[in-house]
Parts: sequence; C-alpha cells; structure tokens
Amino acid sequence: MNSFFNPDGVAIIGASDNPVRGGYRILKNASGGYKGRIYPVNPKHDSILGMKCYPAVSSIPCDFDLAIYFIPAIFLPSVIEECAKKNVRGIIIESAGFAEVGAEGKKLQEECKALAVKHNIRLWGPNCMGLLDGHSRNVFSFMHTDSWKTLMIPGSVSMIVQSGMLSAAFLMMILERGGMGVSKICSIGNKCDVNETDLLEYLIDDPLTGVIGLYTESIVNVRRFMKLCQSTTKPVVVLKGGRSPSGARAALSHTASLAGNYSIMKHALKQSGAIPAYDFTELMDILRGFSKTGCSKNDGGTAVITFSGGGGIVTSDFLHDFNLPLASLSGETLKSIKEVFPSWMDPSNPVDVWPAIEKNGMETVYSKVVEAVMHDSGVDSLIIHIFSGRCDSGLFRELGRLKEALAKPVIAWLAGEGEPLRALKRDLEDMGIPVFEEMGRGVRFLHAAKQHYSKNPCNPNVSGL
Amino acid sequence: MNSFFNPDGVAIIGASDNPVRGGYRILKNASGGYKGRIYPVNPKHDSILGMKCYPAVSSIPCDFDLAIYFIPAIFLPSVIEECAKKNVRGIIIESAGFAEVGAEGKKLQEECKALAVKHNIRLWGPNCMGLLDGHSRNVFSFMHTDSWKTLMIPGSVSMIVQSGMLSAAFLMMILERGGMGVSKICSIGNKCDVNETDLLEYLIDDPLTGVIGLYTESIVNVRRFMKLCQSTTKPVVVLKGGRSPSGARAALSHTASLAGNYSIMKHALKQSGAIPAYDFTELMDILRGFSKTGCSKNDGGTAVITFSGGGGIVTSDFLHDFNLPLASLSGETLKSIKEVFPSWMDPSNPVDVWPAIEKNGMETVYSKVVEAVMHDSGVDSLIIHIFSGRCDSGLFRELGRLKEALAKPVIAWLAGEGEPLRALKRDLEDMGIPVFEEMGRGVRFLHAAKQHYSKNPCNPNVSGL
Repeated sequence: MNSFFNPDGVAIIGASDNPVRGGYRILKNASGGYKGRIYPVNPKHDSILGMKCYPAVSSIPCDFDLAIYFIPAIFLPSVIEECAKKNVRGIIIESAGFAEVGAEGKKLQEECKALAVKHNIRLWGPNCMGLLDGHSRNVFSFMHTDSWKTLMIPGSVSMIVQSGMLSAAFLMMILERGGMGVSKICSIGNKCDVNETDLLEYLIDDPLTGVIGLYTESIVNVRRFMKLCQSTTKPVVVLKGGRSPSGARAALSHTASLAGNYSIMKHALKQSGAIPAYDFTELMDILRGFSKTGCSKNDGGTAVITFSGGGGIVTSDFLHDFNLPLASLSGETLKSIKEVFPSWMDPSNPVDVWPAIEKNGMETVYSKVVEAVMHDSGVDSLIIHIFSGRCDSGLFRELGRLKEALAKPVIAWLAGEGEPLRALKRDLEDMGIPVFEEMGRGVRFLHAAKQHYSKNPCNPNVSGL
Repeated sequence: MNSFFNPDGVAIIGASDNPVRGGYRILKNASGGYKGRIYPVNPKHDSILGMKCYPAVSSIPCDFDLAIYFIPAIFLPSVIEECAKKNVRGIIIESAGFAEVGAEGKKLQEECKALAVKHNIRLWGPNCMGLLDGHSRNVFSFMHTDSWKTLMIPGSVSMIVQSGMLSAAFLMMILERGGMGVSKICSIGNKCDVNETDLLEYLIDDPLTGVIGLYTESIVNVRRFMKLCQSTTKPVVVLKGGRSPSGARAALSHTASLAGNYSIMKHALKQSGAIPAYDFTELMDILRGFSKTGCSKNDGGTAVITFSGGGGIVTSDFLHDFNLPLASLSGETLKSIKEVFPSWMDPSNPVDVWPAIEKNGMETVYSKVVEAVMHDSGVDSLIIHIFSGRCDSGLFRELGRLKEALAKPVIAWLAGEGEPLRALKRDLEDMGIPVFEEMGRGVRFLHAAKQHYSKNPCNPNVSGL
C-alpha cells in the first residue's frame, strides 16, 4: 500500500501537453511536489513540460512502483501486462468507463482486477481522483488547481472519499476555510481493489494521521471495517452517501456501489465507535474539531461564556438537543464571577458577560470569569461566543493554557467580519480552540468529542502534529 | 411606529465622547446616516463630534420625534416626562437593568410603560440594540463597527431580533456573506411595549420589505401574530430561542421572556404559514433564498445537474429527507441530453455532466442539458453544483433567464476557492440564483419555497427590490 503514497518512480499514462486535459494536470501536479522519477507516457509527444515522454510503458528504461492511468478504459488490460514487466506495485486508475457504465464496463473491470491479482499489482480506482499527501507533497490527481501548493498545510486529518470530484472540492473547502492541516486525501472511486477498509487500516497505522474522515457510498467489508474502528483510538467520522432510496439508486450508477440498508449500517457504525456525519460541512467541522482537541473528559457539564444572551439561549437549546448537560456552576464560582458583575445581575450559566464588560472592561471580566469557570469541577467543557471586533487574541491565551492543563475542551463561535475575524480564528485554532461558523455545529462536535474520549484515551497524535 | 424609522429629530440621551462607550457609538452611527436633526444630551459636555450637546432633554429648543436612551435605567421615568413635553413619539431604550434583572427592574419597567402610555409615547426595548434601515441609512444602535456604511446594501430582507448583541452579529454575518440586501433590522430586547407582533404588522405593510425573519424568545400575542402571518404573502421565517427547558430558563433571565411551550408554538406557527428555522444560519439562508426567488411552482420534481456523482447522491438523500421528489425526466429530455453524453453513459437525474464535459466541452454540454432539463414539464425546480474554478458567469446567463420565464427556482451549491468563487457567487445571486454553502441548506430552502409558494402567489416585492 505504501507504494501508492511513497512510490519509487511514477509513470503517467496519458500525460498530455494540453492544459485543459486531465492528463496534463496529473503530470503538472505530480511534478509540483513529488521528488522521485516521473515518466510521462504518450506516443504523440517526445517531451511534455520539459520531461522526456515515452511512447509506451514498455519503452520506459527502468522499473518503477506506481502508474497513474488516464487513457480510455479499454486499454487497461494491456497496460497491466506491460506494468507487470516493470515490477509496478500499484496502478491508480483515474479514467472512468468501468463498472459504473454497465455490464460491459463491469466485465472489463473484473477482468482487470483478475489480471492485477495475478501480477501482484494493487489497483486504485477506477473512476477516481487519486491521492494527495500534505506531508510528502505527493499529489497524484487530475485536480484542476495549483492552490494546493500554498494552501495545503501539513496536518493530522486524513480522508477517504469515494467520489472523485468531491475530494477536490472537499480539499479546497478544507484549505479555504482554514485551520485544518492535511495528512492524506484518498479518492477511491469504484474501488475495484483498494477500498475504504484497506485505506482505513493504512491510515490507522500512519503516524502522521490523527483523525480519519470518510465519504463513502458503500462499505465493502462492514465487519472488518467495524473491527478496525474498534481497534483504534483515532476518531473515525463517516458520511454515508445513498442513505435514501433515490440516493442509493444514484450511487449505483455513480460508482456501481450497492449502498445497502442505511439504518443497519448506521447502527453498526455507531456500535464500532465510528462517528456518523450528516453532511459535508458536519464531516469537516468534526474533523477540524478533532484535529485541534486531543482530549476531553465527560464528567460534568458544559459552561457557556457569551457576549449575547440570545446566543446563550440558543446554545442551551442545542446542548439539550444533543443531550449535553449545562454545567451547574458551584457557589464558589458564582461568587467569584459576581465580583466583576453589575450589582443588579446575578451570574448563571450561560454566563452573559456583556453587562459586566460594559462596567469593568473586557480584560478584567474575561480573565476572572474564564479562571473561575474553567476551574469549576462541575465544568468539563466550555463554549465561548466572541465578537471579533471587540477582542484580540491575547485575551484567550490563558484560556488556551488552562484548556490543555485541565483537559477541558474549549470551542468558539465567532461573529464579526473581515480580516480581524479571520486572524482571531487562526489564532484561536493555533491555541487548540476550534472555531465553528455555527453554534449548533460546535455543539455537534462537542458531543462527538465527549462520546469519543469517554471511550478512548487522549489522542496525542492529534494536537502534536 | 413610523416615528421610530423615519423620525423628525432625534435626541441621544447619554451621548458620550469616549469612543469605547455605547453612547459615543450611538451618536456616531446616527450621524453617519440619518439626515435629520440630532440632539446629543449629556450634562458633562458642550459638544461631541462637533455637535452641540444639551445638558438635558428640557434644554433642547425644539420638539422632536425620537429619543434614544442610553443612561442608567433609574432615570427613565423622569426622561419620559421630559420627552412628553417635547412631543416625543417614541423612545428606543438601549440600556439594560429593567425586567431582566429581577423584581425591582420589572417594577421600574412597568412603571415606565404606564407613564409612556399616559403620554402616548411608544417604548422600544429596553435592553436592546435599536434599529438599522438599509434604505434610509438610519442606524439608531450602539453597534461597534462602521462597516455598515459600506457593507449594508439596501434590499428586501427585514429582521426582528429579540437579542441585542445578536442583531449586530447577525447583521455583520449577513453583510459579510454577501448577497442579501437589507431593509430593516429591529432589535427589540425586553419589548415592554413595541413587540415582534407590532413590528411584523409594520413590516408586512412596508413596501420596501419582501421577506421577514424573526429571532424571538417569546411571542407576546400568538393569535395576532398568526393572523398576521396568514394575512400576508411575504414569507415569515421564525427562529425561536428557548425551545429547551434550559434555554427557556436562560431566556427568562435574558429578556425576562416566558418562552412558552415550543411544540405548541411550532405547530401554531406552521399552521399560520410561518416557516420555522432551526438555527441562525438556516434563518439567514432561507431569508437570502427568498430575497432572490420570488416564485416557485410545486407541480413536479427537482432536477439536479452536478459535476460530481457523489454530490448528486448526497443531494438525493437531502431531497428525500425533506420529502421533495427527484424529477423523472421525460424520454424527450433524456434523448436530448444523450446527444452530448459519452456513448457509455445514459443520463439520469441527478444529471452528472462531468464525463460529457470532458468529452464535448463545458459550454456545449451545459447549454444543452440546462435547456432540456428546464423545459421538462416534470421539473419544477433545479439544483446545480458548480466548481467555480471551471466555470464563468456567462455559462449561467441563459439559466437565469429561463428560471424567470418558467418560474422554476434554481439554487446553486458552489465549490472552489478565493475570489473566483466569491465573484461567481455574486453573479449568480444577481441573476436570482441563490447560492448555498451547503447542499443540505439549499434543499432546506427549496422545501420552504415550494411550501410557501404553493399557498401564496409570487412575491414581486422580492426580486424587484
């Protein structure tokens, strides 16, 4: 499996010199990051992008580990034969036209699979977008953007995505919204051989991966998948496509996946400790949360420190929806907070600090309240609401320290605008305080974290990367 | 009521020259937009921001319509008396310290209310953030930012928000995420007199308002509120804070609101045609959707045109969740689409156009598919998924025209990054195609639109503004 991620030599079959073609992008992306030998293959060219181009795999002078296939489906069997002679270990098939197009394509796919097994070659795809690696910078994909070079920050989040285009869209969303470092993104398409369960196993063993997310239309080997989830302390978050009858029908034509009965699968996933996600944003939010928060206890309630009474109320509603109790603050905590509150206002949880701030200033109030609330033994987690225009990062430094020292996760919801908001978001996330665009999404993550860490020990892989 | 929005003369009681104080911001904001007479009131200053400052209301030389109150609660009764002598019609009380602080504050609030009734003065608040008007540019609020000047685009969306800080946060979110023009934002706090129902009535009659959103912790007069909702063709979207027992308790201390039984209220709202929102983002998404889409039929199914099989599958799942049928495309439509599809691929709904685009190019395929799908009589609405890096706005111009001509709403989900994404989003929304960050949110809006317009005629106020 490692030959896919760290190959010794890569051939690109169907490399093109036309910038709108996928075969050009694959070559451009690979040469933009991968440090090893690259062999473009295309009988129509002598060289592309300054690299010598070979008319066929057979004309490549050395053995190599990995081939990326991007020519019509029909040629795959002969290419597998040629690759076998070069001791190729794996082929990433990014072309479509296999099982997803009907009986004939299915037959072709099965034939290729048998041939590959015979030659001890693993097949990745077909009908997929390949892989990206945030650490090695290997990008074996036809994705149409160079932005990964600057935007892809190495980190702990790995993803397995069954849909080709989606993995590119995903990645761009992850990079754009910021704050989430990437380990490996794997787009697996029809998964005629390498499937989500193989990759889950690989990523569980990967020291550079701390959190694993999946978008999948089917799980090939549910039992093995569940066992793997149970075997790891890394959070595994799963978005299942094709939950509905109409979605399942669409999945069949998309990647020839039999989506299976979702209610059974959902139950099985939960039992194995995997975390179900409802949609792409939830999947990404939970992954980002886990990539910042490696620890959580589950022995108290959640405190809310807000600038807005309304925000506190709605957050209470969300906590209730997820069965997360609001912390009962101790008498000592309330007494301490009361010192900075206006005389007419008695503190309670959610702690609406705005009137106190109007009276005693931001810093005095915030440090007092944070200190008291975080040390309260009835508080196991904290949600903060912030208006970015009114606060700078320094205000939260002590909170960042306390959260580590006390192993109490802190999540933030930010309102505000423009660059001040983005800067504060970056700083908070660097302190290990994940920021959510929506209060409800943050509560959803907190629920997942408390559930996960009540069954698993802290995950040093996560924040350490 | 109009005196609040278009007053002839405004006094600012508690105007301050200290930029961190609310009393400074109120004056700064008012003088930044309001074209009428402004009277700062503060005995400590002779002038603030170049305006003559008066020691008391009684020393203002002329009558005026509106007072904005931002001094401690205890002085309000005497200020009401003084205002009565100046023929004041309304007072916006932005200070806290009334019913939300307990029995004494409640007594004070009731006393003030009685006094105001006696003098025929309407009270707005207390414990609120005032109002903003996108058209007149009147901003009577202590919100701490100048960004409204450039970011607040006049439009059709009005909001009533019970929470002070939230209305500022809301507004900033609306402005930041773009695309939603603002008519009136009203923050009503404890609503000792002017309440959500009064404002709903005002906004229903307001020709510059096309869509109305509410965040409220309680509805004072549910029956009147429901009647108003039933009486209008304007969509009314309601987010209720304090759904849960803990949220309801927090609401009590926030704005002294008795949140009431949510399940009863939710049922009542639905019966009256109001649209419930689950969270702030959903509220904003639905409002933005309605501000772009003034029409929808409900006599067919939804078509999906996607670049990603996975996106189509997940969207099918969401449609199923909301009980919205996927359109069955006619034989004629399928035949027409097939002309640009690869031979191995038979079109179905969701229509995954990517393989066809790889074969025949973006423009040929897109115009063909859009034309065929939009004219299919079984299609009453369309969802498009776009990768912004691959498309420019011109591609969607014909779709923008068809959507109007056929009264079939089109919504979009965009993936991509940076300025190209933001530019495409702006262009699509200018064409009346609302863009959603999440597929599921878009489907939620489509559900709301189909429900609303199946009971109400098209709303020319919406897109015409």
